[in-house]
Amino acid sequence: MTSTAVHAETSVNRQWRLAARPNGLPVATDWSFGTEAVPEPADGEILVRVLYISLDPAMRGWMNDRRSYVPPVGLGEVMRAGGIGRVVASRHPDFTAGEHVSGIFGVQDYAISDGRGVLRVSAETAPLTRYLSVLGMPGMTAYFGLLDIGRPEAGETVVVSAAAGAVGQIVGQIARIKGCRVVGIAGGLEKCRFIVDELGFDAAVDYKNEDVRAALREACPDRVNVYFDNVGGDILDTVLTRLARHARIVICGSISQYNNEGPMRGPANYMTLLVDRARMEGFVVFDYAKRYGEAAREMAGWIAEGRLKSVEDIVAGMELFPETLLRLYRGENFGKLILSVGDEAS
Amino acid sequence: MTSTAVHAETSVNRQWRLAARPNGLPVATDWSFGTEAVPEPADGEILVRVLYISLDPAMRGWMNDRRSYVPPVGLGEVMRAGGIGRVVASRHPDFTAGEHVSGIFGVQDYAISDGRGVLRVSAETAPLTRYLSVLGMPGMTAYFGLLDIGRPEAGETVVVSAAAGAVGQIVGQIARIKGCRVVGIAGGLEKCRFIVDELGFDAAVDYKNEDVRAALREACPDRVNVYFDNVGGDILDTVLTRLARHARIVICGSISQYNNEGPMRGPANYMTLLVDRARMEGFVVFDYAKRYGEAAREMAGWIAEGRLKSVEDIVAGMELFPETLLRLYRGENFGKLILSVGDEAS
Repeated sequence: MTSTAVHAETSVNRQWRLAARPNGLPVATDWSFGTEAVPEPADGEILVRVLYISLDPAMRGWMNDRRSYVPPVGLGEVMRAGGIGRVVASRHPDFTAGEHVSGIFGVQDYAISDGRGVLRVSAETAPLTRYLSVLGMPGMTAYFGLLDIGRPEAGETVVVSAAAGAVGQIVGQIARIKGCRVVGIAGGLEKCRFIVDELGFDAAVDYKNEDVRAALREACPDRVNVYFDNVGGDILDTVLTRLARHARIVICGSISQYNNEGPMRGPANYMTLLVDRARMEGFVVFDYAKRYGEAAREMAGWIAEGRLKSVEDIVAGMELFPETLLRLYRGENFGKLILSVGDEAS
Repeated sequence: MTSTAVHAETSVNRQWRLAARPNGLPVATDWSFGTEAVPEPADGEILVRVLYISLDPAMRGWMNDRRSYVPPVGLGEVMRAGGIGRVVASRHPDFTAGEHVSGIFGVQDYAISDGRGVLRVSAETAPLTRYLSVLGMPGMTAYFGLLDIGRPEAGETVVVSAAAGAVGQIVGQIARIKGCRVVGIAGGLEKCRFIVDELGFDAAVDYKNEDVRAALREACPDRVNVYFDNVGGDILDTVLTRLARHARIVICGSISQYNNEGPMRGPANYMTLLVDRARMEGFVVFDYAKRYGEAAREMAGWIAEGRLKSVEDIVAGMELFPETLLRLYRGENFGKLILSVGDEAS
């Protein structure tokens, strides 16, 4: 371990652990904050100083003790989170101290890893936070969910919810690149203006201030060919009433339902799948791991051409983790929500 | 019009018309029964003496004033229904008096038709009621829904609900023919025994007397690859918890919800579509009209080989229409429910 390994501001490892399984929105007592000594890597391991932590809607699901696409976070365990960090010590043949990496490092300052799922990233190629947004999981999720499951064709109408969020903004821009009419559903005038004026969406529906059904009817005169759903609940039910024949609904998330204290609410209008000969399909981005490189190359090209933008919403301070996470479920984030916990330059 | 045109027992046209839009299960005041003179065909038309009327779960949906895959039945109109009849007078070049035909003739003794959607059927090839079951819409629905939407592969597990019903029994038998493990969900010991002992299903789940979740777990050790859903509600929600990866759910109907007085109930567990990378898709059999012949030929072959059976539940008497229809929604029918309203031999 080199002498620069331990960042000046913290010589200990601050950690947020899951203390209890939340009922509804996570509250303070669902978390425990503590510090530990910075661990040392064993043979075949690296020590990573975490710089940026990804805050994702899916984290709420990982806190439940329920079968899902990944195991639940155990009680007492460091909360699972993706992140970007710097290798500060390496006893692994593939990594060198000083390199930047992405991986599932958890909500903590220092992570030990055996290198599985860890990718090198370059601060020269793009700002590091991009690897948590358009060049990271949200970008991969948008790319494969839209193109592989939604399969939009030029001229079709694509609707995306949480359209100013990490995934939604990329979904809409890719759909535009593919020649579709793109309508975003977002909360508030500022977000709606942003996706139309800055990201080039054809129209926006402000679910906080508009009648979604009426606004969708106006924004989608030819109905909806592809709906990329991040929210579930009322909005999914409303879009179901506006499907075009052979529509595809991509089930990416259901953030409106993650903090229900009772059961999930199912889409009451699902029988329009029959009326409209439509399909609703889920996917898990990890299944596309072998094709991440292909997607990253294509999206990097669009970024270079100025056709694909990415907005990050960065909050600084490890201590702010619990309350910052809640911003997601209140729809308060604007673009990809990231917690900054270390100093990139140090 | 020949002198044998008017069947002896009724020289008038008995008709059931929709009098009011039901709230929940249709009640007596939702119908009006009346008689009219037997109509005469104009040029280009045929007059059909209806013999058998198909009673279908979908009829409940047609009674609502709501957008669907066919327009609602108007108030005061003869209730829409498929049927089999005999041409008693023809002023249409393609039809001759004495021929048997299938078509949408309504709940009445006599129908005038311009021949659109009317197919000739042969009483020599199969009992006429078969053209309302395995060789008719239920057969086509089962064939295309299972094979085109569900796409089962040999060795996979196929589950079908309303498994002793008109569509369900055919779905299960075709899935067996395709080499699948087939599990039927039906109500009551008699139906469960029938689908296993008579139709060759691998297992049955009696939703009226068993814990469906536990029984499905036992009957589907490798989880569920294809679920052909005729019922919606609790059973759909339960099957959603037992999906195999990349499962396909065929949305054919949701009979458990058709008579809800409140809103439909959506599948609360639909997010397993994401966890299991699964898809839920609807279809409308009419879209396959050009391929009906292909399906009928293949199914006729299976019938001839003794591999595909069909059970019909025939109730005689036009006056019994309203109460017989209700048997569908109570799960009291055993196989395809048909109302017999005329004398085949006359």
